[in-house]
Amino acid sequence: MTSALLDALRATCGAPNVLVGGDLSAYERDWRRRWHGKALAVVRPGSTAEVAAVVKACAAAGVAIVPQGGNTGLVGGGVPDDSGTQVLLSLQRMTRVRAIDAANLAMTVEAGAVLQAVQEAAAAAGLLYPLSLAAEGSCTIGGNLATNAGGTQVLRFGNARELCLGLEVVTADGEVWDGLTGLRKDNTGYDLRDLFIGSEGTLGIITAATLKLFPLPAAQTTALAACASLDDCVALLNLARARLGAGLTGFEVMGRFALDLVARHFPALPQPLPGAPWTVLLEQSDTEGEAQAHARFEALLGDALESGHVSDAAVATSLAQSKAMWHLRESIPLAQAEEGLNVKHDIALPVSAIPTFCRATDAALQARFPGVRLVNFGHLGDGNLHYNVQCPEGGDAKAFLRDHEHAINELVYDAVTAHQGSISAEHGVGALKRDELVHRKSPVAMDLMRRVKRALDPANRLNPGRVV
Amino acid sequence: MTSALLDALRATCGAPNVLVGGDLSAYERDWRRRWHGKALAVVRPGSTAEVAAVVKACAAAGVAIVPQGGNTGLVGGGVPDDSGTQVLLSLQRMTRVRAIDAANLAMTVEAGAVLQAVQEAAAAAGLLYPLSLAAEGSCTIGGNLATNAGGTQVLRFGNARELCLGLEVVTADGEVWDGLTGLRKDNTGYDLRDLFIGSEGTLGIITAATLKLFPLPAAQTTALAACASLDDCVALLNLARARLGAGLTGFEVMGRFALDLVARHFPALPQPLPGAPWTVLLEQSDTEGEAQAHARFEALLGDALESGHVSDAAVATSLAQSKAMWHLRESIPLAQAEEGLNVKHDIALPVSAIPTFCRATDAALQARFPGVRLVNFGHLGDGNLHYNVQCPEGGDAKAFLRDHEHAINELVYDAVTAHQGSISAEHGVGALKRDELVHRKSPVAMDLMRRVKRALDPANRLNPGRVV
Repeated sequence: MTSALLDALRATCGAPNVLVGGDLSAYERDWRRRWHGKALAVVRPGSTAEVAAVVKACAAAGVAIVPQGGNTGLVGGGVPDDSGTQVLLSLQRMTRVRAIDAANLAMTVEAGAVLQAVQEAAAAAGLLYPLSLAAEGSCTIGGNLATNAGGTQVLRFGNARELCLGLEVVTADGEVWDGLTGLRKDNTGYDLRDLFIGSEGTLGIITAATLKLFPLPAAQTTALAACASLDDCVALLNLARARLGAGLTGFEVMGRFALDLVARHFPALPQPLPGAPWTVLLEQSDTEGEAQAHARFEALLGDALESGHVSDAAVATSLAQSKAMWHLRESIPLAQAEEGLNVKHDIALPVSAIPTFCRATDAALQARFPGVRLVNFGHLGDGNLHYNVQCPEGGDAKAFLRDHEHAINELVYDAVTAHQGSISAEHGVGALKRDELVHRKSPVAMDLMRRVKRALDPANRLNPGRVV
Repeated sequence: MTSALLDALRATCGAPNVLVGGDLSAYERDWRRRWHGKALAVVRPGSTAEVAAVVKACAAAGVAIVPQGGNTGLVGGGVPDDSGTQVLLSLQRMTRVRAIDAANLAMTVEAGAVLQAVQEAAAAAGLLYPLSLAAEGSCTIGGNLATNAGGTQVLRFGNARELCLGLEVVTADGEVWDGLTGLRKDNTGYDLRDLFIGSEGTLGIITAATLKLFPLPAAQTTALAACASLDDCVALLNLARARLGAGLTGFEVMGRFALDLVARHFPALPQPLPGAPWTVLLEQSDTEGEAQAHARFEALLGDALESGHVSDAAVATSLAQSKAMWHLRESIPLAQAEEGLNVKHDIALPVSAIPTFCRATDAALQARFPGVRLVNFGHLGDGNLHYNVQCPEGGDAKAFLRDHEHAINELVYDAVTAHQGSISAEHGVGALKRDELVHRKSPVAMDLMRRVKRALDPANRLNPGRVV
């Protein structure tokens, strides 16, 4: 049975693209090394027709499929389980840019294209594909869409979902749905596109996508602002939105302890506002030019200083300074890793609820785990915090996690639920949060999701055990 | 059986809200008077709990439900068939603004709230809800979401879909799905929200929604530009996008004959660019003020004049002039109605394909129906044209439609399909285009849609005969 399937896969994709022996850990282990499975085979189809044939062969053999892009996910959604019975289907050979239609501000790319290559292909055509995130050098656009990736430009441009016009998907039956449209408007039936986006490979396998492009901004400028509290950060956000409109493309917040960790582990990085309880990074993208963008930043921050929401500010006057500001923000996860193990949360809240949530949850964590350290930073403009919990100074991180990770998660997620938030803002569900989801979503929502799953994948063969 | 159901509905909603006699044409007939059905009863629940109870009662009696908002739809999706067996469920009593969260730029309203009331409630809080369309004085937000309405601000803000954060929906079983979230990011499972949006009441009944709000722009300015061809219009669009970025909130195109009809039937309306083969209406929304917006328009149009894409232009210098320009655009459908019956098409195309599509389709129509007149106008920035066909000058419009409507539709829709377009950009499918859809969508897409319908409404009790 298995050998017949392997023969069929080899006949479809060529023997070199059906891997069964040797070190397959690049496919079988996630990059944070939290999951390590065992695949029946790793299959690397080179075309949509080959993906469809692989799905049909696996369906005929009753074998489950785990689709994988760049394997940069954070929730164990793209690696096989340890049963040795699942076929890992890697999209990495399907990297073609099929078309760029500049006058329609759209491009069609295959699912295995690396995000950075997509950005570069758009830029080569004088256009912008705005999705941007830490893993962009190795994550794929198919994975970005399957997980509805977020990143640093969501405030202006939306998540991966909002940046997609159409999809090509191989269904659980091995049929090809050609939904590759370049249309901005199309009300001819149910929104299949958005059903597949964010479904983490459990409803179909995304093989290509038509993406929205934008004119390249003439200038991008960055500023830092020091705030005394998260209330001040939210006030600054709303002032910036009103004054800069869609020109405000980034609004990141960084807690004092997060930046102290950066100072400890990367002392060479300049910190322009060293004493700030909260530091906000603002980014402005402009169609006119740097002089105007600077003038707008100066006016905005001047008013925020006067109204007391900001106590100090620094506007980048060069590209190097802008990059250094972003580098500070991007160094937080690295500094945190240097400091040691921690409990990560990728949560979303209504922006208006963030100050209350943090006050209440910080206090509850301190009361229950005295001395615990909070690395709090994230995309405040989207209501998305990376609210991470580190053991007390000098403590044994491993033991702390072993003893308290579960209780910390429960405490934080209960607070998130109480504030109408989400326990997964941008990372998805995967294997990591599947069981938790049942407790956090309503029975009606779970029932609707299960009905959809059964309708589109009745044999439960696409990424089983993930999401629902 | 029927009387038991009516008793149950009266017990739920109160007898005055269960209408069975008298003139019910306001509910049973669509406003264009193309469909006139007969309802078993018109039920007007006053709360989500009442909607759920009505759905349960109808399910127990095996009776189908047609949900209705403001009854302004254009595709016969909101009126009952003529069997006298369907319950018409009107959401018009559920008009409450449940909450406005200004710091989170979100508001929650009930489905029966009239769009204009929603816009006004947002404005009263100093914020903008951007959805705007001709029927806004009577259409409801529930209907807007059920049909994924478009309108004049899609270029910047997207369709109703993109302006919605969360929904409350009564399912086919009469359960309430509370998906009223104010979150910008939430990757905890399948995108149920977007599945219900645009499903035209066939998968569930939207009872409330949380909507995205935006800061009010400081200034809105309008300009008209004369172009020799649609190629020039597309060139101007892309120049305007690059120069104005997200400040470009409207880009409407109006063909010569469309404006000639306005001149014929509304001679008092000023036409600043009377000889233009194509007239573009540009709208700019600005966070700074009118002076800057004017300067940007002058620079943009100056360059477009120099490059030859524009032959003449007029920038509005007062609010009255801006309104007059929009009035010109909005008068086209009215002028067309004065001129007589016509065949309407609400099509979408990739923006880049519009000039070729129009050249080819105009010529094909002229060849087949000599002297036929094309009223071509619409939201060029979104690739959405209202491409309407009027009988030859002095002809018998009624006879022309009777003899040729079907052939005209076939010709136009074949051309749309050949150019990768959509036969319904913003009006939906309803009863009007349901049969056509089967010919225009792939069997794979139709199969996926039917699976979803069966999964969520297995007894086919929600708006049967519509969409799928």
